[in-house]
Amino acid sequence: MLHRFTELCAGIEPLDGEAVEQALNHLDQLTKPPGSLGKLEAIAAQLAGMTGEAKPEFAKKAVIVMAGDHGVCEEGVSAFPAAVTLQMVMNFVAGGAAVNVLARHAGAEVVCVDIGVNGDLEHPQLVSRKVRKGTANMAKGPAMSREEALQAILVGADIVEQYANDGYRMFATGEMGIGNTTASAAMLSVLSGIAPERTVGRGTGIDDAKMAHKREVVSKAIAVNRPNAADALDVLAKVGGLEIAGLVGVILGAAKHRCPVVIDGFISSAAALVAARLAPLSAGYMIGSHLSQEQGHEALLDELRLTPLLQLDMRLGEGTGAVLAFTLIDAAVKIMREMATFASAGVSSGGESQ
Amino acid sequence: MLHRFTELCAGIEPLDGEAVEQALNHLDQLTKPPGSLGKLEAIAAQLAGMTGEAKPEFAKKAVIVMAGDHGVCEEGVSAFPAAVTLQMVMNFVAGGAAVNVLARHAGAEVVCVDIGVNGDLEHPQLVSRKVRKGTANMAKGPAMSREEALQAILVGADIVEQYANDGYRMFATGEMGIGNTTASAAMLSVLSGIAPERTVGRGTGIDDAKMAHKREVVSKAIAVNRPNAADALDVLAKVGGLEIAGLVGVILGAAKHRCPVVIDGFISSAAALVAARLAPLSAGYMIGSHLSQEQGHEALLDELRLTPLLQLDMRLGEGTGAVLAFTLIDAAVKIMREMATFASAGVSSGGESQ
Repeated sequence: MLHRFTELCAGIEPLDGEAVEQALNHLDQLTKPPGSLGKLEAIAAQLAGMTGEAKPEFAKKAVIVMAGDHGVCEEGVSAFPAAVTLQMVMNFVAGGAAVNVLARHAGAEVVCVDIGVNGDLEHPQLVSRKVRKGTANMAKGPAMSREEALQAILVGADIVEQYANDGYRMFATGEMGIGNTTASAAMLSVLSGIAPERTVGRGTGIDDAKMAHKREVVSKAIAVNRPNAADALDVLAKVGGLEIAGLVGVILGAAKHRCPVVIDGFISSAAALVAARLAPLSAGYMIGSHLSQEQGHEALLDELRLTPLLQLDMRLGEGTGAVLAFTLIDAAVKIMREMATFASAGVSSGGESQ
Repeated sequence: MLHRFTELCAGIEPLDGEAVEQALNHLDQLTKPPGSLGKLEAIAAQLAGMTGEAKPEFAKKAVIVMAGDHGVCEEGVSAFPAAVTLQMVMNFVAGGAAVNVLARHAGAEVVCVDIGVNGDLEHPQLVSRKVRKGTANMAKGPAMSREEALQAILVGADIVEQYANDGYRMFATGEMGIGNTTASAAMLSVLSGIAPERTVGRGTGIDDAKMAHKREVVSKAIAVNRPNAADALDVLAKVGGLEIAGLVGVILGAAKHRCPVVIDGFISSAAALVAARLAPLSAGYMIGSHLSQEQGHEALLDELRLTPLLQLDMRLGEGTGAVLAFTLIDAAVKIMREMATFASAGVSSGGESQ
């Protein structure tokens, strides 16, 4: 297992600088003032670097929604009961959740993975790759073992590989797991050194009293487990989550296949931070989708040096921000492929007259 | 003409508060924490208020791209020659410009209107409603007469009426007119009292020296014409533009037909400010699309009290930001129409346990 994981990380290559150059040259020939499409141009250049093609196409896209439960819920850290994880998984496979609606809108498939839901569930649309039935309560001991974390990472990478082999070329991260903003805050605090006062947020909507309690739980989890900040896998195992580990694998797998991976909100970004620590070159394949309202997300994006495309005050998770960003990324792709050049349209370029 | 204009403004009704209430109630029954879709929820509620329907649909959408020339170009205020206005109009009707690509992406039609291009042009895809061949040089006298401004407003309103009768229910503003950031900066300075130092920007990409000159030209145009800040029509005629006046009509026309109108960047926002001064209720039908890089746009959006959906460092105009925002607005529409409720999906809502 460790061997496969090491191979996964070692297989990630840097972006293709020549393709980036070609894309930037093409952008400057299009009928618009140079740079005037802002972040869309930056995305177009990055996509070229990832794929090695100046004008790549991404016919098939998928959001991988990893679902897992959190033992720490027994400490009372969420506005919703833990049973909602399982209920929402059934909502995903039935197509009724926000991520389903927004994925359909973006022309993307929703792949829902039970990687650690605390319950028995089966559905033709559900990918069952359960590593264990929820994590242990991290306020009392490690959330999972290092082996379980590795196993969950490989599940994520496997699923991406399967879809990549099936022609999918763009991925997004999504998750469901009541209690997972608590785990993500703990991971961020350890990996960045930022105190829980600034990493713990309201999650699905807790009040001030419950947030104070959540901060204490995070501090306790860190004190009890003493995760090693220099060993991201240790942090992931001790204060992370199964669905978060699965997303680490999705990100590493996408990077290995030279596919862009669009990072959703706070929890997905925590997974991205672990991926970037485990395999720094994977960061080149990440696209920041949105800045969520969850306290701590901005600091997390800063750690990742990701600029979000959207700031819509969203705080839902599931991959909703990431699939919404798909529509903007598609726009950048089409700009590269469909716009006229100054020469082809007979338009004077700037500075040549007046 | 004045009678038709007065009727247009008087025909605009306030938003339907009951429909807004219904939309908000529905949003809180959907399987997500209340408010967690942020600005998408605010847009959904506003769309309900505009249309009077809790879950409206917008099958047909159009971006109205008004094109006109500016006499002030002879002062040397732009990075591009004035001839580019006409060349870009031909690019629009051929489908090769950025707005064409992004409108196709959003499933919207591009309606290109020659309302004041300085040249003779004809094309089956071009709507020819020329009021005059470009404005006069506002640095020397009024850009146009009050009657011409009124006429251009009515052209915009006519076109929207025609499309509304044809089943189009959502509009966006777009424009092409070399020199029109100069006119828009002058309008903003007069209407808001903000000095040209803060309203004049780089437009399509001028350097510091040319920007200093552009500021002087704007100051001179204001000094020469002394537009009356309390009379938006006077400001529009003296230091505005034909395409800007056309967009004022598009906005008022959309509002009269209870249709959302998505406001593009700096120039479109200048038109929106005139519309809001002429008919304050029209503001309820505006949706801010993006914050452009043009200096002055943020102040302009503040005047309009519009929150942009996107901040992509764009500065292209044409309606590009507005049609990109169409994809987000469509997402909000689909959330209302397609998401499961807590009851229908059998998901526990928050606060009922733990």
